[in-house]
Amino acid sequence: MSVRKFTIAGIQLGPIQKATPKTETVARLIKLLKEASEKGAKLAVFPELALTSFFPRWFIESQEEVDSYFEKGDITKNEVVKPLFDAAKEFNCGFVLGYAELTDDGHHFNTYILVDNQGQLVQKYRKAHLPGFDDPTPGIAFQQLEKRYFEYGDLGFPAYHSNPEWIDATMGMLICNDRRWPEAWRCYALQGMDLCLNGYNTTANGTALFGAKENKTVRIHHSDLSTISNAYFNSCFAVSVAKCGVEDEQELIAGSIIVDPNGLVIARAETEDDEIITAEIDLDEAINGKKKMFDFSRHRRPELYGRLVEQKGAIETPYKG
Amino acid sequence: MSVRKFTIAGIQLGPIQKATPKTETVARLIKLLKEASEKGAKLAVFPELALTSFFPRWFIESQEEVDSYFEKGDITKNEVVKPLFDAAKEFNCGFVLGYAELTDDGHHFNTYILVDNQGQLVQKYRKAHLPGFDDPTPGIAFQQLEKRYFEYGDLGFPAYHSNPEWIDATMGMLICNDRRWPEAWRCYALQGMDLCLNGYNTTANGTALFGAKENKTVRIHHSDLSTISNAYFNSCFAVSVAKCGVEDEQELIAGSIIVDPNGLVIARAETEDDEIITAEIDLDEAINGKKKMFDFSRHRRPELYGRLVEQKGAIETPYKG
Repeated sequence: MSVRKFTIAGIQLGPIQKATPKTETVARLIKLLKEASEKGAKLAVFPELALTSFFPRWFIESQEEVDSYFEKGDITKNEVVKPLFDAAKEFNCGFVLGYAELTDDGHHFNTYILVDNQGQLVQKYRKAHLPGFDDPTPGIAFQQLEKRYFEYGDLGFPAYHSNPEWIDATMGMLICNDRRWPEAWRCYALQGMDLCLNGYNTTANGTALFGAKENKTVRIHHSDLSTISNAYFNSCFAVSVAKCGVEDEQELIAGSIIVDPNGLVIARAETEDDEIITAEIDLDEAINGKKKMFDFSRHRRPELYGRLVEQKGAIETPYKG
Repeated sequence: MSVRKFTIAGIQLGPIQKATPKTETVARLIKLLKEASEKGAKLAVFPELALTSFFPRWFIESQEEVDSYFEKGDITKNEVVKPLFDAAKEFNCGFVLGYAELTDDGHHFNTYILVDNQGQLVQKYRKAHLPGFDDPTPGIAFQQLEKRYFEYGDLGFPAYHSNPEWIDATMGMLICNDRRWPEAWRCYALQGMDLCLNGYNTTANGTALFGAKENKTVRIHHSDLSTISNAYFNSCFAVSVAKCGVEDEQELIAGSIIVDPNGLVIARAETEDDEIITAEIDLDEAINGKKKMFDFSRHRRPELYGRLVEQKGAIETPYKG
């Protein structure tokens, strides 16, 4: 049996304070996963860095302290996290989880894993588009030091086709800032993605990233826009899930959404705390766009797109008067 | 003097019926350009195919009849259109105009030209993303035969920096369906684009392009989404302008908009007919995004984007269970 129509859940999380023990957080995630499964979900999406506070907001000098936010080695053998894997099997509900990964050979990544309904880790993604800075900015209340604490994701954008008897989906995973980069979505869509899973920790205000018009409403608009437009351009469903609320004195936006291939929001979180949103989705609804407006094989012009890979930054176009 | 802050106009057009003589249409455009200049505009954007009815809706067997919709040879020497060039100089207001171009050596393109405030043609763009079909679909009221009547644009995405004493802008032009393709916007943004100019003829209903949810509201949502999201992703201003209303019995959407680099709509047409929308824009507002969230030189990962140019169509990702 091929399961193309099923219920999916986004599990928005309220803050995870620095002082909260990981065992307590994992217990909270298990409880939420159980609730999602009781709502009929076959797959539930947790946000980015769902085991810890968003620590890149701090300049931490001690590498030992930095590493305390990371899960070391094979996460499937991590005693603290293992109960969550077991829960996926028990509740027959897979999940996507974000966490800070420290590999056995000492590499640091901002990572997302897909665990199936048998509790098996079946796919891993490492954040490609790290925002922020390598070095702290003097005189600001909160930093954005992802470029300091993480290495750039080295796995590309590997689409994954799940066991059709669980859910018959071609999935792509993106983490937070990745969702603002159409290149990332397209790399997945070129592998047939019909379901994109994204989690974020996005601050409600802060470092003048958006200029004079910056405020929480504009930031939520940008978050929505990124998910909604790219779901449309790539004719896929998308789930974007926040860690939100006031976490260690810094406010994060909420606004978790589930979006269909027409770029229509079919579920939206109403709170700024733990909240499960669900939608019954039929992946066959993604086919129409892939065969018509966004039939890449008929309409794309890759011979004109050379700059996308030949250039990293923008060049200037001078006036030649 | 460098003019970074100026008024820009989008000139939405109501229908241009097949029976309307081109001289009459050009007179209408001149009148509208004059009005735009009286509102202070330095540049006015007309839509795609602004001299004729949207003829790709018909299956036309006679090439002679097809060619009657095209402007042959050098458009600056076209006696019918020349008064519009003269008007740009007279009103000190440049324009962007869409028309069907037939070159001296027999090539057919869906073309956009930028004419400066001296009445000089300074840049040309030819539509890269032709929608529709090569062959007519039996049994439908209106075709979409752009792939039949036009060749694919062969000029790439050439950004243009205008005379700073007129307006100090790095501009990109896109035509209709192009706006739905993030690759096109990005190719321009990688050349420093801070102003994107787009015109469209988009049907309000028709060929089930968007599946069961298809309707006029969804189509306007898609049009908005394409312009708004890409303006944000590329930190540029954008003007998207419709030919709208019931043209030769086929309804076209309106919804012309001017958008800022935060993806906020700063002007929107309210009618489905000839209507001038204007906004005073400050191109320096595009700098913030280009230096922060969308500083490509710091944040893009072109080494991971190979598929964007190595593949045209999507491949399937099979289950490897």
